[in-house]
Amino acid sequence: MKKTISQATIDRLPLYFRTLRLAEEESLQIISSDELGRRLDITPEQIRKDLATFGQFGRKGIGYDVRELKERIGNILGLHNHWRLAIIGIGHLGGALANYVNFASLGFSVVALLDRDKKIVGHKVNGIEVCDIARMKEIVASKAVDIGVITVPADEAQGVADLLVAAGVKGIWNFAPIKLSVPSTVPLVNEDLSVGLSALSYHMSQE
Amino acid sequence: MKKTISQATIDRLPLYFRTLRLAEEESLQIISSDELGRRLDITPEQIRKDLATFGQFGRKGIGYDVRELKERIGNILGLHNHWRLAIIGIGHLGGALANYVNFASLGFSVVALLDRDKKIVGHKVNGIEVCDIARMKEIVASKAVDIGVITVPADEAQGVADLLVAAGVKGIWNFAPIKLSVPSTVPLVNEDLSVGLSALSYHMSQE
Repeated sequence: MKKTISQATIDRLPLYFRTLRLAEEESLQIISSDELGRRLDITPEQIRKDLATFGQFGRKGIGYDVRELKERIGNILGLHNHWRLAIIGIGHLGGALANYVNFASLGFSVVALLDRDKKIVGHKVNGIEVCDIARMKEIVASKAVDIGVITVPADEAQGVADLLVAAGVKGIWNFAPIKLSVPSTVPLVNEDLSVGLSALSYHMSQE
Repeated sequence: MKKTISQATIDRLPLYFRTLRLAEEESLQIISSDELGRRLDITPEQIRKDLATFGQFGRKGIGYDVRELKERIGNILGLHNHWRLAIIGIGHLGGALANYVNFASLGFSVVALLDRDKKIVGHKVNGIEVCDIARMKEIVASKAVDIGVITVPADEAQGVADLLVAAGVKGIWNFAPIKLSVPSTVPLVNEDLSVGLSALSYHMSQE
């Protein structure tokens, strides 16, 4: 699957995946685009268009096979890889992410926590011991870490990214409000919690 | 400004705003779409297209007036309203949001924290006292809360949303992994941290 899919569609796929997983837990076998749309607040037209990007799914007038569609979307998103995360910077945000339940439901697992603060190193968060950041390379190898999650302050983030790349992680998820330089072979996604809040501000200003 | 702007463009506006604010701090007066693009990893064409949505900005071959463009985007996003937030559910995520520095940089301020757990009520987080959720209506009025931020577990989220609406908040930012029912007059934005992580998984799977 090397076809390019729009970022907006990629952003909706995890929502489809979670909704289908819940439908599967309800023992639903078939779901219509109308019902998916109702559960997600997305128009059925948008859903049919998104799913058509990946080829022929579902049958007209009947709906989508819940399990088949869920598996297909999970494969497109690469969730079958069961990526293993290390969080670097165990402050408020890092601690919250170490405890965030939604990751497990999508097949991600947090396997390592790192910090440079000796006062935190050795403590456990959600059952995982916080290790000294000086042990990055050893931890990434021994815990088979795929993804580095950066939750350190902005002025420390590039240094942490360099350490992660040198340690051989396959991707970086950055929460620090700074543009990081990483090799093009290491995918990087920047997260900014104020983007959603600004979108809310925009909608409130239209009222 | 009642014109509809695409969600993707709205999502980029806070990034433009922050980059322009940093440029302003560097005493930059004019910035080109090339330079904005370099700082944001967005193509100059996309930037010119996004900004053209709001009318005529900038001058060909010269660039955009940093301060003017920043103010204009801030106005479109409604940031001049200096929205006041109450966070409901002071667990790991709620505590992280109470300490999240990026909000202040965009003009949002956290003015109230609420929880139903008597063990947390009365404690201070980032200088703000956690109040009992039973005092919701009184707190929303006395602290002039505009936005309710929901960080309680999924099975408590609808109840909290109902309390927020009854207390008169103008918007809701929901982190609970559940679809909430609120009146159409109260804008709602759902946040799901695993969406960004899934996008990273997608890109890693293409490598």
